[in-house]
Amino acid sequence: MKDKPIFAPMLAIPNGVTDISFYINAFGAEELRRFGNDDGTIHVSELSINGAMFHLHEQTPYSGFFSLEKNKPSVTIGLFVDDVHAVMAQAVAAGATIKSAVQDYDYGYRQGEIVDPFGHRWQIQAVI
Amino acid sequence: MKDKPIFAPMLAIPNGVTDISFYINAFGAEELRRFGNDDGTIHVSELSINGAMFHLHEQTPYSGFFSLEKNKPSVTIGLFVDDVHAVMAQAVAAGATIKSAVQDYDYGYRQGEIVDPFGHRWQIQAVI
Repeated sequence: MKDKPIFAPMLAIPNGVTDISFYINAFGAEELRRFGNDDGTIHVSELSINGAMFHLHEQTPYSGFFSLEKNKPSVTIGLFVDDVHAVMAQAVAAGATIKSAVQDYDYGYRQGEIVDPFGHRWQIQAVI
Repeated sequence: MKDKPIFAPMLAIPNGVTDISFYINAFGAEELRRFGNDDGTIHVSELSINGAMFHLHEQTPYSGFFSLEKNKPSVTIGLFVDDVHAVMAQAVAAGATIKSAVQDYDYGYRQGEIVDPFGHRWQIQAVI
């Protein structure tokens, strides 16, 4: 086991996607590498939010990995940040839909939840 | 944005679960807090794999959050570790199903993929 393991979720996107600017605009993500298909669409994109790596991968039904076009969310992408309000505002400005507005919860988290353009849920959160 | 944001995925589990020992046995996770229902089943569990936090949350169809009992995976839980082979072996010994055996890929990752008892996919990986 790594001294401190690191989560790096991989999110399914539909086939045929070329525009992932949402993640850049919403979270300041930087695309580190892209592996494309012959038609220019994305197979895998490797991104980093200031060092926190995550991946987008086109759906591959043959391997049992499906986008949320006709599917339902089973994972929420928790992202701990310093300023929950600021990141929520930036994500909404970039086109995210608010699922839960920012609140402080009695279990010790400040959090708000958004849905991204591909249907993935992001919980923007901080320990308070 | 946090100086270095941290991913902490939240995985849906079915209603009625009490046994999450898989995560303890597979990854050496420690359960930090548990919020239970009146019948003793899990509503939310907060866990840590040596400092890497994640959550299990019972499905809440009213909020659009579904377990993988009748649903399909749209996220793979990437977990970067030091020793991919060792963590894969430990997870399999704990009851995980192998989806992809450990390989070194030409894009620079060593990785293997497992399916946990609740249907979630974990990609155990390292940069090589």
